[in-house]
Amino acid sequence: MTNHLDPIAAEPITPMARHLGIELTGWQADWAQVEVTLAPQLLNRQDLPHGGLHATLLDTAMGYAGCHTGDPALRQHALTLSMTVNYLAQAGGRRLIAQARKTGGGRKTFFAEGSVQDEAGTLIATATGVFRYRGAPGS
Amino acid sequence: MTNHLDPIAAEPITPMARHLGIELTGWQADWAQVEVTLAPQLLNRQDLPHGGLHATLLDTAMGYAGCHTGDPALRQHALTLSMTVNYLAQAGGRRLIAQARKTGGGRKTFFAEGSVQDEAGTLIATATGVFRYRGAPGS
Amino acid sequence: MTNHLDPIAAEPITPMARHLGIELTGWQADWAQVEVTLAPQLLNRQDLPHGGLHATLLDTAMGYAGCHTGDPALRQHALTLSMTVNYLAQAGGRRLIAQARKTGGGRKTFFAEGSVQDEAGTLIATATGVFRYRGAPGS
Amino acid sequence: MTNHLDPIAAEPITPMARHLGIELTGWQADWAQVEVTLAPQLLNRQDLPHGGLHATLLDTAMGYAGCHTGDPALRQHALTLSMTVNYLAQAGGRRLIAQARKTGGGRKTFFAEGSVQDEAGTLIATATGVFRYRGAPGS
Repeated sequence: MTNHLDPIAAEPITPMARHLGIELTGWQADWAQVEVTLAPQLLNRQDLPHGGLHATLLDTAMGYAGCHTGDPALRQHALTLSMTVNYLAQAGGRRLIAQARKTGGGRKTFFAEGSVQDEAGTLIATATGVFRYRGAPGS
Repeated sequence: MTNHLDPIAAEPITPMARHLGIELTGWQADWAQVEVTLAPQLLNRQDLPHGGLHATLLDTAMGYAGCHTGDPALRQHALTLSMTVNYLAQAGGRRLIAQARKTGGGRKTFFAEGSVQDEAGTLIATATGVFRYRGAPGS
Repeated sequence: MTNHLDPIAAEPITPMARHLGIELTGWQADWAQVEVTLAPQLLNRQDLPHGGLHATLLDTAMGYAGCHTGDPALRQHALTLSMTVNYLAQAGGRRLIAQARKTGGGRKTFFAEGSVQDEAGTLIATATGVFRYRGAPGS
Repeated sequence: MTNHLDPIAAEPITPMARHLGIELTGWQADWAQVEVTLAPQLLNRQDLPHGGLHATLLDTAMGYAGCHTGDPALRQHALTLSMTVNYLAQAGGRRLIAQARKTGGGRKTFFAEGSVQDEAGTLIATATGVFRYRGAPGS
């Protein structure tokens, strides 16, 4: 997969994402992509990826999608107000790829949508969210 | 806090929950409680608990709430169809407690709602979800 | 049912709610109740109450719950940012009663939850929502 | 706008949709479109389209999207299990157009997403939903 990560905007991913093995593999204006390789510690009681993993991937990707500034010294933050995740199918293969894009909003809040696909491109989960910007960019 | 865990129904928590340090501290018919102690690897870019953590707590608690059988040999499983998480406030203290209860449903699906409170009892997040039972209990 | 409507805070209900026959039957600080009598024009293809009716009842009740000022000259408005409705059961009888309460928030946004019951007290639907205050009260 | 309504699959719209002036203007496999002309009885306290209107448009469009059979004698029905609506922007002009498509699911449930645009093509609202099929097609 082509890496769509704008190098000048890269920054370390959040600690919880790192703890789960989630990597930021794409980040551009109004768009972000994160990925994870499935591992035993990401499963549920049924040996399937835990629903909290999809939620974490999607919250992460949607949050980044609304906070791209293109300048690592100018960090924009946001807080999730509400997020809905739909679980459409079970994943095949060993990797989950989440993409998200900002769909609207203004200076104080933004809306985003995201999806998780498996290695075969099957749509595994979708999400929408509302986020509140926190502080001014770079503050 | 009184432990409301029915000992005969206890079972190891899901691998992902364990990886995040989440403990099942209460499980009864139509009700479950999970808790986590905040730690650096559960935070986001802003040193706040990652939204994925609340989602994982709530998905876990709501899933257990609908799957209590009272008999560890008779395991009921469920898959999340949809979950919505609202983020109301920032947590104080070092511990998050999520409670969930089954609110309705039938043989094939169930509905649940849950909430996350911090140590001071402040309401941090709420959730609702729809789940699909998977197989018959014990199958 | 006791009428919990604070008379000094009463105001005509929204035009769309009136068009559907929805009545505001309770309104106090952080709480509101609306009701509707089922009629042929509120049904779907299956002669059941249309899912949009529950959504309208819940959006209306949650919106009012966050906007009570106690002073009809001091009107507080809000816009819905996001709403999730879960449909738990089919209604019996001829009347739907929706109650909602504000669960959190601050000066700019608020969170609410609501439920719809039928005449027998069966839980028919639940909702959560995030709302943005619009203007200052009375402005 | 080109009319995408498959004439052989047309049927009267639901009574509540008709009561609100909502028209079914497109219906094909896994896709549906409904429209409404704004009128005074569709507004809220602020003279804006009531949030319940968007919810009704989206519930209607998503429900139809999952129930197309191409044969008016073979009617497929569904019940909404859960729906989330996000309100992104205020509408300009006098007409709202909602489109929805089925995104996944199986024999018993389906998932859909939808959006509402105004006459200028501005994205006003988005939704996702989970639905349960009711009976077999034609039953």
